[in-house]
Amino acid sequence: MANAAQVQRMSRLMIKTLRDDPADAETASHKLLVRAGYVRRSSAGIWTWLPLGKKVLENVSRIVREEMDAIGGQEVLLPALLPKEPYEASGRWEEYGDLLFRLKDRKGSDYLLGPTHEEIFTLTVKDQCTSYKDLPVILYQIQTKYRDEARPRSGVLRGREFQMKDSYSFDTTDEGLAQSYALHREAYQKIFQRLGLDYRIVSAVSGAMGGSASEEFLAPASAGEDTFVDCPSCDYAANTEAVTVKVAPVDGGAHGPVEELDTPDTPTIEALAEYLGVQASATLKNLLVKVDGEIVAVGVPGNREVDLGKLGEHLAPATVELVTAEDFVDRPDLVRGYVGPQGLAGKAFRYIADPRIAPGTAWITGANKEGRHAKNVVAGRDFEVDDYLDVVVVEPGDPCPKCGTGLKIDRAIEIGHIFQLGRKYADAFELDVLGQNGKPTRVTMGSYGIGVSRAVAALAEQTHDESGLCWPREVAPADVHVVAAGKAKQTELALEVGERLGAAGLRVLVDDRAGVSPGVKFTDAELLGVPTIVVAGRRAAEGVVEVKDRRTGEREEMTVEEAVARLSA
Amino acid sequence: MANAAQVQRMSRLMIKTLRDDPADAETASHKLLVRAGYVRRSSAGIWTWLPLGKKVLENVSRIVREEMDAIGGQEVLLPALLPKEPYEASGRWEEYGDLLFRLKDRKGSDYLLGPTHEEIFTLTVKDQCTSYKDLPVILYQIQTKYRDEARPRSGVLRGREFQMKDSYSFDTTDEGLAQSYALHREAYQKIFQRLGLDYRIVSAVSGAMGGSASEEFLAPASAGEDTFVDCPSCDYAANTEAVTVKVAPVDGGAHGPVEELDTPDTPTIEALAEYLGVQASATLKNLLVKVDGEIVAVGVPGNREVDLGKLGEHLAPATVELVTAEDFVDRPDLVRGYVGPQGLAGKAFRYIADPRIAPGTAWITGANKEGRHAKNVVAGRDFEVDDYLDVVVVEPGDPCPKCGTGLKIDRAIEIGHIFQLGRKYADAFELDVLGQNGKPTRVTMGSYGIGVSRAVAALAEQTHDESGLCWPREVAPADVHVVAAGKAKQTELALEVGERLGAAGLRVLVDDRAGVSPGVKFTDAELLGVPTIVVAGRRAAEGVVEVKDRRTGEREEMTVEEAVARLSA
Repeated sequence: MANAAQVQRMSRLMIKTLRDDPADAETASHKLLVRAGYVRRSSAGIWTWLPLGKKVLENVSRIVREEMDAIGGQEVLLPALLPKEPYEASGRWEEYGDLLFRLKDRKGSDYLLGPTHEEIFTLTVKDQCTSYKDLPVILYQIQTKYRDEARPRSGVLRGREFQMKDSYSFDTTDEGLAQSYALHREAYQKIFQRLGLDYRIVSAVSGAMGGSASEEFLAPASAGEDTFVDCPSCDYAANTEAVTVKVAPVDGGAHGPVEELDTPDTPTIEALAEYLGVQASATLKNLLVKVDGEIVAVGVPGNREVDLGKLGEHLAPATVELVTAEDFVDRPDLVRGYVGPQGLAGKAFRYIADPRIAPGTAWITGANKEGRHAKNVVAGRDFEVDDYLDVVVVEPGDPCPKCGTGLKIDRAIEIGHIFQLGRKYADAFELDVLGQNGKPTRVTMGSYGIGVSRAVAALAEQTHDESGLCWPREVAPADVHVVAAGKAKQTELALEVGERLGAAGLRVLVDDRAGVSPGVKFTDAELLGVPTIVVAGRRAAEGVVEVKDRRTGEREEMTVEEAVARLSA
Repeated sequence: MANAAQVQRMSRLMIKTLRDDPADAETASHKLLVRAGYVRRSSAGIWTWLPLGKKVLENVSRIVREEMDAIGGQEVLLPALLPKEPYEASGRWEEYGDLLFRLKDRKGSDYLLGPTHEEIFTLTVKDQCTSYKDLPVILYQIQTKYRDEARPRSGVLRGREFQMKDSYSFDTTDEGLAQSYALHREAYQKIFQRLGLDYRIVSAVSGAMGGSASEEFLAPASAGEDTFVDCPSCDYAANTEAVTVKVAPVDGGAHGPVEELDTPDTPTIEALAEYLGVQASATLKNLLVKVDGEIVAVGVPGNREVDLGKLGEHLAPATVELVTAEDFVDRPDLVRGYVGPQGLAGKAFRYIADPRIAPGTAWITGANKEGRHAKNVVAGRDFEVDDYLDVVVVEPGDPCPKCGTGLKIDRAIEIGHIFQLGRKYADAFELDVLGQNGKPTRVTMGSYGIGVSRAVAALAEQTHDESGLCWPREVAPADVHVVAAGKAKQTELALEVGERLGAAGLRVLVDDRAGVSPGVKFTDAELLGVPTIVVAGRRAAEGVVEVKDRRTGEREEMTVEEAVARLSA
């Protein structure tokens, strides 16, 4: 739309559509983008964008650029080939592991292909900005990024070379960072809305990037690699690792005293539940882990799994490891398979419990003796909890933390991510500016990403139907696809319609291919997914064409004049 | 100009201008692009494009894109990270040597960072095009390229990571290739004209790329790494290695018979000329080389040097090497330092001579005896020449091959290159399409490049003056630079002028920085090089501004209304 008007004749377009899905393709976007001639595989996870694909990629980039400019973002272009040293200073040269493409130049110096550019942007601002007057600054680039994924798949959804918009904000105050973050959040909402993507904003854990507030923009799609929880009643949505349940205490007075049971050969919850004929949810599972080398027990209902990622996030920067047989050698008080918190919590180990182990609830748990369990073990009466942390893997039906309704778990594609990084990188590179008080002030940063090539795949996932792609207008490779369905007369009319629509400022694709049957042309038009299809067919001699909406399938015959007037309105 | 109107306030722009040249900078473009805050070095030969630099780069890209689209070029985007195999098939995995950045992925597979993409485009067309009806096709991309230069220097003029437009044409006939080549030649002329570059088109040797017709687009500049010859009288210009002089035969009847001279200890031309008291130009130098292992003598006037590059080009695909002492072991007929063609040319060795050794010309040359030379040795009478080839290093004053005027030798920056590759890559990858005759037809290719980031540097070289950069309007980062030279009143007026010019569709930079003196702002305005500078200064209260042409320095006072009317006209 913002591009110059143009008419592209398919007879002169390099395009070869395919009737069959590529053998290795599993997702709709992968299949359709290849079949419609938008992309071709170069090597594993590395793709060529063919003419129509490049147009869509460019349209997405333009929308991103316009909205980044609107919040005062300044576009720059940093190298993709980066020296090792800054990434060593931040620790990411090692942390990235095999995900990083590393290489040496002719002199033997180490380089990497940039997976994301926090280090280099920090150094750029350190070089360019010296005073609080120079901030805030938002810098962005739309650039080729590299990650050596272990399992590149799903076409351009998860590539090893891909297009990304990354931006970085630099502020002197926490309030400034919050403001830069809010600007990005709004810009991202506009971008995804303009792209025509259905998306949810979810709270995210901060992951390897460090920092505090963080949200992900997820496009629900069955092909997505991310799962998220979604409340059917309220607007709550979150990364599955970010869900935190609160459970209120209950009255534990109704429970009888602790009673020991003989439960031979029941070191697992499954064996115990079967032996006693109870639900696993009636038992209390105590997982032993080492936190910075100290043994900690984590209590969760027997039917739930501990999410070690969530646990790690809660306890960061401490490191969490599973215990090994060696850890039991000097600890005869810890009876493997029969551990219970009663008598031990807060003494033999720090005791972390899921909020579901609320004060007043009663459990069947280990009796701290081989082959024995205890029942009526009541939280707050028979043991104390050091910390209540939600550390279980979230499950469908868990209560919404906001309204209590049972949550759904859906799949989605992560299309954007916004982060309040804080001072992690500024500390690593000593990024200070002269503050208003005349003293050096450490800068605080945000980092924000949109997967530009991934957004194309996400759009294909969300908008396709069984006939093919189905682009929203602003990202479509053309506004109108004119099909010449017949012989010379039809081709002549199709080209005339194309010229007139082009003159009216529309981007037009005219299928004027000779020797291609109308049936093939119709099939290709559906596959390519341009929003409006105009057919010059049976009634071409009368100057009548058919105008079809690709998405709804609604079709109507009208004169060329009416069609041009309607479509250019 | 084609960008949306926009007003950029310098108080919100990330820019730090420098008063001093970077220590390692030798060329004007390197110094000024760094000092004006357009680019910053990331690592050797690898650059960051800062906000104003990115705008200029984008303007150049847009012009290139528009003219490529105008000749029917289809834009695509190929990966930069490429698998080894196609480059092994073409032989360039080895040929490129250290110039290629090579790396391995996590599985140990070999990859390279693309220096140019003939192989991958050939494979793309092989995948997409099956019939003569699918051709001709012109594909292009504007993309990041990589070459591990031994001595990256001159800022963005010769980087290791750089932006390039590369395009490739695919035709079934030689005439089609000539037509695709002609289209590119015209498009390049338009592009460089729109960029405001002074350029010459010169015949080029085909170099390592193989193929036949080839021309370079050179931007004359003292910082250039290329030399070229330029005729002051006619329109002849050529790469120095591509100059071919023709010399007519002269009447040799006037010369006396061959006479041997005793010339002890004169194995070099210098020693001989001094000993005999003659000009070096009166002597005939015979350089021995090995061509595919066979000894060949190359005769040139004693005052000229053999250009081994030119010789190699003439004799390609044969390999040319210098002889070594070992080559004389079995050849007592070859007396080192005293070789002459008489009696040996065409027998002991193939004899190649420069056209200046024209039939009828007489020379002092070796007598094929230790310490002896011969005079009155006449070409065509005393020896025969197997091949006349211009193989000398061209020198100023050499006759123009077209009009005979003495040539100049100038320095220039190579900004574009067009090549008729022919079938070299189509042969390597068996790229055939179904011909009109129903049989497979081998495709013929052209390859065409423009150094996009290099063009920015070439423009800076050609257009700067002692005060700073001086951009042509279409590539400038803004149309107008408004300077608020004073206090609140001036800043208010400057912002008003900026808004009004912006509303009139101009791209405006307003220097509204607080706490920066008018002198510094004026200096920065000259340094940044926006074509028109508007100063809100002394007479701001009257609504009068000064309008200055950055290039000519012409300045005029006028009211804001007049300024807006004049500049938006």
